[in-house]
Amino acid sequence: MQSYEQSLRQTKQFLLDHDDFLVVSHIQPDGDAVSSTLAVGWLLSCLGKKFSMLNEGPIPTRMNYLWEADKIANMSVNPPERTFSNVICVDCADFQRVGLTQRYFEPGASIVNIDHHPTNNGYGAVQLIKPDAAATAEILYDLLKTFDIAWNIDIATALYTGLLTDTGGFRYTNTTPKVMEAASDLLSHGVKGPELAETLLEEMTLPQVKVLSRALQTLEMSPNGDVAWVSVTPQDMLDCGAANEDLEGIVNYPRNIRGVEVGMLFKVIHDQAVKVSFRSAGKVNVAALAQTFGGGGHTRAAGAKVDLPLEQAIPHVVKEVSRLL
Amino acid sequence: MQSYEQSLRQTKQFLLDHDDFLVVSHIQPDGDAVSSTLAVGWLLSCLGKKFSMLNEGPIPTRMNYLWEADKIANMSVNPPERTFSNVICVDCADFQRVGLTQRYFEPGASIVNIDHHPTNNGYGAVQLIKPDAAATAEILYDLLKTFDIAWNIDIATALYTGLLTDTGGFRYTNTTPKVMEAASDLLSHGVKGPELAETLLEEMTLPQVKVLSRALQTLEMSPNGDVAWVSVTPQDMLDCGAANEDLEGIVNYPRNIRGVEVGMLFKVIHDQAVKVSFRSAGKVNVAALAQTFGGGGHTRAAGAKVDLPLEQAIPHVVKEVSRLL
Repeated sequence: MQSYEQSLRQTKQFLLDHDDFLVVSHIQPDGDAVSSTLAVGWLLSCLGKKFSMLNEGPIPTRMNYLWEADKIANMSVNPPERTFSNVICVDCADFQRVGLTQRYFEPGASIVNIDHHPTNNGYGAVQLIKPDAAATAEILYDLLKTFDIAWNIDIATALYTGLLTDTGGFRYTNTTPKVMEAASDLLSHGVKGPELAETLLEEMTLPQVKVLSRALQTLEMSPNGDVAWVSVTPQDMLDCGAANEDLEGIVNYPRNIRGVEVGMLFKVIHDQAVKVSFRSAGKVNVAALAQTFGGGGHTRAAGAKVDLPLEQAIPHVVKEVSRLL
Repeated sequence: MQSYEQSLRQTKQFLLDHDDFLVVSHIQPDGDAVSSTLAVGWLLSCLGKKFSMLNEGPIPTRMNYLWEADKIANMSVNPPERTFSNVICVDCADFQRVGLTQRYFEPGASIVNIDHHPTNNGYGAVQLIKPDAAATAEILYDLLKTFDIAWNIDIATALYTGLLTDTGGFRYTNTTPKVMEAASDLLSHGVKGPELAETLLEEMTLPQVKVLSRALQTLEMSPNGDVAWVSVTPQDMLDCGAANEDLEGIVNYPRNIRGVEVGMLFKVIHDQAVKVSFRSAGKVNVAALAQTFGGGGHTRAAGAKVDLPLEQAIPHVVKEVSRLL
């Protein structure tokens, strides 16, 4: 297996040796996916290469501030008119994550696989994979440093966006000294870090605030205060005009209460089924817990589906959680 | 006026030349005040100096993880038995901020003033003031670097705590390249950055969550969605067991809604008076706005008191805000 430095050199050489690239990322792109697509595009434009950027769907509107974000084609709006023989896939742990954009890959196309997911399965002719990188943007930061190019605020803002979003605002455990050093360097290129944090991490939609308010009204706790939970019904979702993505983050409220070890969000699917999201403060492995209900996830964030009405699901799950504490 | 480097050298010399120090910070100490007190204590212990650490009141319990946090005496619990002729004041913009601890300063004591507030009025025999430092911890980071001392996780954790809290988790506009570079260095000493972010920035008390829930239920917006507000009554405070500090951050919820330029929290003081907190997304200078009501603050965060019942205060203030948009 080649070293990271060798992979960087190989990737650099591939970009220098070829022309006319398609740059794609995963479906439902997040901050790192969009940033990484644009960072590769920015590099290719500096090298004077021909390239197109594509995603299966739209780019989140809150990322419109990014350099040429409007140049990432949305497949269902303005698809490419031809196929490409050189494809760069960023932030995709496996090939299927590119979604329907693969229709525009020529059969036998050369694929460059640039990614940070530990589960990356090593597809592609050229692989630039660093599982301990916080974001694909961190890998692209290293790749761009191997070129003799003058950086500007556009590329710095793109890379900072990837680091910021994939570390949850420098709060997740992937926030390494390397991440902070890169962030420092990027800020010195004029990145408006605080504005980005506001736009990407703090902004909420009105339905999000409304459904959060509904959920918090249902807050309950175990007698000794180590388990806390909230619930949301289909009627709440309807009343608030909320979509599933608006529930993101709500489970952190019960979890963040001082003394709570496990926080939960019960989302009623229908009369006989509830989706449970678990968050652990550290003591309880909620992945194992979720598995006992046929679900799964990570040690501190997991989920499962329980085939019971809400009034029965809550005491049933709380009892199982309390048993572990 | 001497340079920052000269001030660093002068402060270093003062510490080397003297012994038996009292280290104090401001009343109601925040993360930077506690961290800076402990950072000076850690330095003095490395130098083999005699010292005592003191605050007018208690240290917030969530900072108990800090090295020797329990050694900062609380004046009303375990006051010093004598006075000191060498006093180091950290994070205090003016001398009065030390509160009643000044009872333990000898008349004519030599005072070292280490602070980052732009409003620092230059008290003390030795002044180490850097107004563009994000935190007093940043200045102490520089000061400690001038000594030939091996750093460990204790001092790194203290300094990281000061940077983290005074930049709002690397989100405020004081988050400079220098801050991120120092954070990178501190993480490399083993600081558990993500755990600190959780404890210091994300943890909430039960009354905090309850009063947030009450406030969000009152959410209202201007017809075009650029002004949003919530309110809290004395009855809410009572029902939730909430103190004033539990209201911190609530005003950000209306402000963070997409499209909102000014977010407000109306806190009923009594039947005829309301305290209004203003937060701006940038367009409106809420300091100037607050001044029209006899209040004040910063351009993006300000407050004022309005002598009206809540039902009259809201439309009155909203009308003034809308006029500016």
